[in-house]
Amino acid sequence: MRVEVVAIGTELLLGQIHDTNSAWIGEQLALVGLDSFFQTKVGDNRARMVEVLSDALDRSDAVICCGGLGPTQDDLTRTAIAEVMGVPLRPDEEMEERIISMFSGRSRRMPANNLRQAELPEGARFIDEQPGTAPGLVCPLMWPRSGSGDGAATEKVIYAVPGVPWEMKEMMLGTVLPDLQARAGIDAVIRSRTLRTWGESESGLAELLAERIEELDRVGNPTIAFLASGMEGLKVRMTAKCPTAEEADSLLDEEEERLRARLGALVFGVDDDTMESVVLEMLRSRGLTLASAESLTGGMVGSRLCDVPGASDVYLGGVIGYAPEVKQRLLGVPEGPVVTEQAALAMAHGARVATGADVAVSTTGVAGPDSSEGRPPGTVCLAVALGDPERGGVSESVEVRLPGRRQQVREFSVITVLGLLRRNLLEWSG
Amino acid sequence: MRVEVVAIGTELLLGQIHDTNSAWIGEQLALVGLDSFFQTKVGDNRARMVEVLSDALDRSDAVICCGGLGPTQDDLTRTAIAEVMGVPLRPDEEMEERIISMFSGRSRRMPANNLRQAELPEGARFIDEQPGTAPGLVCPLMWPRSGSGDGAATEKVIYAVPGVPWEMKEMMLGTVLPDLQARAGIDAVIRSRTLRTWGESESGLAELLAERIEELDRVGNPTIAFLASGMEGLKVRMTAKCPTAEEADSLLDEEEERLRARLGALVFGVDDDTMESVVLEMLRSRGLTLASAESLTGGMVGSRLCDVPGASDVYLGGVIGYAPEVKQRLLGVPEGPVVTEQAALAMAHGARVATGADVAVSTTGVAGPDSSEGRPPGTVCLAVALGDPERGGVSESVEVRLPGRRQQVREFSVITVLGLLRRNLLEWSG
Repeated sequence: MRVEVVAIGTELLLGQIHDTNSAWIGEQLALVGLDSFFQTKVGDNRARMVEVLSDALDRSDAVICCGGLGPTQDDLTRTAIAEVMGVPLRPDEEMEERIISMFSGRSRRMPANNLRQAELPEGARFIDEQPGTAPGLVCPLMWPRSGSGDGAATEKVIYAVPGVPWEMKEMMLGTVLPDLQARAGIDAVIRSRTLRTWGESESGLAELLAERIEELDRVGNPTIAFLASGMEGLKVRMTAKCPTAEEADSLLDEEEERLRARLGALVFGVDDDTMESVVLEMLRSRGLTLASAESLTGGMVGSRLCDVPGASDVYLGGVIGYAPEVKQRLLGVPEGPVVTEQAALAMAHGARVATGADVAVSTTGVAGPDSSEGRPPGTVCLAVALGDPERGGVSESVEVRLPGRRQQVREFSVITVLGLLRRNLLEWSG
Repeated sequence: MRVEVVAIGTELLLGQIHDTNSAWIGEQLALVGLDSFFQTKVGDNRARMVEVLSDALDRSDAVICCGGLGPTQDDLTRTAIAEVMGVPLRPDEEMEERIISMFSGRSRRMPANNLRQAELPEGARFIDEQPGTAPGLVCPLMWPRSGSGDGAATEKVIYAVPGVPWEMKEMMLGTVLPDLQARAGIDAVIRSRTLRTWGESESGLAELLAERIEELDRVGNPTIAFLASGMEGLKVRMTAKCPTAEEADSLLDEEEERLRARLGALVFGVDDDTMESVVLEMLRSRGLTLASAESLTGGMVGSRLCDVPGASDVYLGGVIGYAPEVKQRLLGVPEGPVVTEQAALAMAHGARVATGADVAVSTTGVAGPDSSEGRPPGTVCLAVALGDPERGGVSESVEVRLPGRRQQVREFSVITVLGLLRRNLLEWSG
């Protein structure tokens, strides 16, 4: 079964907004084993939307429209779909009431044109999930339309979901993907799980798993794939296809066990885990607090940690010692060169003392574009300090040479130092 | 003249890579006044590439293919274009030598299949710019092809550029856009300039400029457009179309003067200026140093400042006071509630004293998802401290209610506090 994605919005064509929805939808379709060979972007123009939808229906069995479901005159997705179906748009009273109550619930005045969102092409139904005011649509139709005559008509379907990512995702996962699988007669359940790794290159992982990859190539189920994701680490995605969810999940359980046996501590998390969330959870479970001392990252370590809701019960804060004098004043770093492991260690210890945290991480180095202290861009010194040195505390520092430009060097520094902290937490009895 | 963009690569459909090229190309086309109504993504599949290219040629005059020009068997753009043109692919000796010398120049062994990149569809030419090993293509053709019969053939053109963004951009600006303008008979030069603003909503700006917008609607040249860009502020883009670059630039100069007269201090920069780069430059020119004290932003202010190369001669660093105790220990904030303007002021003063900087900014508030100190998510207190209070220094604090979720609240806090600093620097004699 072929599925196409059509992203709608003139601002997408003009490059004022980046279409990240199509990529996410494409990934989800691949995961459930549906082919998706084309993705199209078209502006807020009824005639061209009809043209694109018709072309898509000619070559595919299902079309997912993303965007153009808002209340304004520019939002033409409902109108275009009705035209392609050859049916009228009808206001749906139940939905009108639901939208009205949404606004009154938030005690906000409802602009009259919001009721346009309650219009439904004849023969279509609304998607149950409705996280925002915009309802999504499931629109079955016979294609080609009788009269247009080329070949026998078959039942196809157009889905319409909002362009707002979290609204789109809730509708995709709740209704669109299951409905597509049912239509495709996929009774097999496809489940996927991603192991998040850090510390080995893609080729390094491939070597470690070479034997198992060969076996899986023969067996064919589950499958595994690598995905390098910058400061998110290197992902190993396992996908299993089975008659039932239980069987798929247990197949993934077995495979995860096999891969973990080979990858060991390289695996820092699963699926939506991030190095930040994992490290924070390790510290939380050990009752430890964390501080940071940052030079070249300039606050990015702290900022990433604070992206995680609930970080405040572990992460106390820290010092951004961008200038050498600040490293000395607030972190007690001795005068002298600062792109050294000694300086990194002094920064970490200083952050512990200054904040009273149990554990601290530090970053210092050359982000570029220029060299510094005679060290080339990408030269980075990182350190962790766990506990009081006088009471069995330990510390470790490393010097690494990170690839890429200024921003990338800083990003890799963040996950590298948090990875260093993680490894020490695994080893440290504390 | 209609131009379409076709992004090529299975990894784009699978969502493993985000296609940012199409959006950039779409923006450039709009800037030079060329219509771009459709953008398509297709995988590394010859037949489907031919199908997409044919559809694009049916409805448009020019097609820009992005990607699929590499040396591997997956790179099928050259082959697909030759098939659409109905001509053979021929190796080009000159290009073969150039590619060979590129590798020897970098003293790298050249994989034999790199020579596939030297193949050229008969009747096509290479793009002069060649920043990487992959050459770009200009492929004029008559469409529809004789024999396919529907209607008289007209000359159309397919361009092929690499998927690597900086290679693509150099070829687009150097060859593709000028060639398109020539074909479109656009002898007019189109120039654009963006005023970066902060402090007014889109509707607020529209009110301030209402009179001028009406005039421009009548005159039609230059045109202006608004673009809300989150923590990048609100952009006002002016576009002028004139016989010569000089005339276009002077028209933009006049318009910028008019808009600035109405927008005043709301305009913080032009084109690639960011609030960070502007504030750093204002401080640099005044010989002042900067420090930060961050709570809910957790280091994002510092990190954004350090994104700017050369930040180190102005930004000294600061304190991330995420936990109340750290605010007290390192910033001298008195005990008590910390989501207050008083706490924000104390943090800013504390950062000045701790780092020895001339100027400091601070952020404290509730990022969410949960409330804190009985204040709802989005409640944010910000402050700036300029100079020593005892020597004519000044300080200012504000409490704002920022929209959105955790991440967005933190991002808006960053530009809001830097905007507050900018306004104070404009007024402060120092």
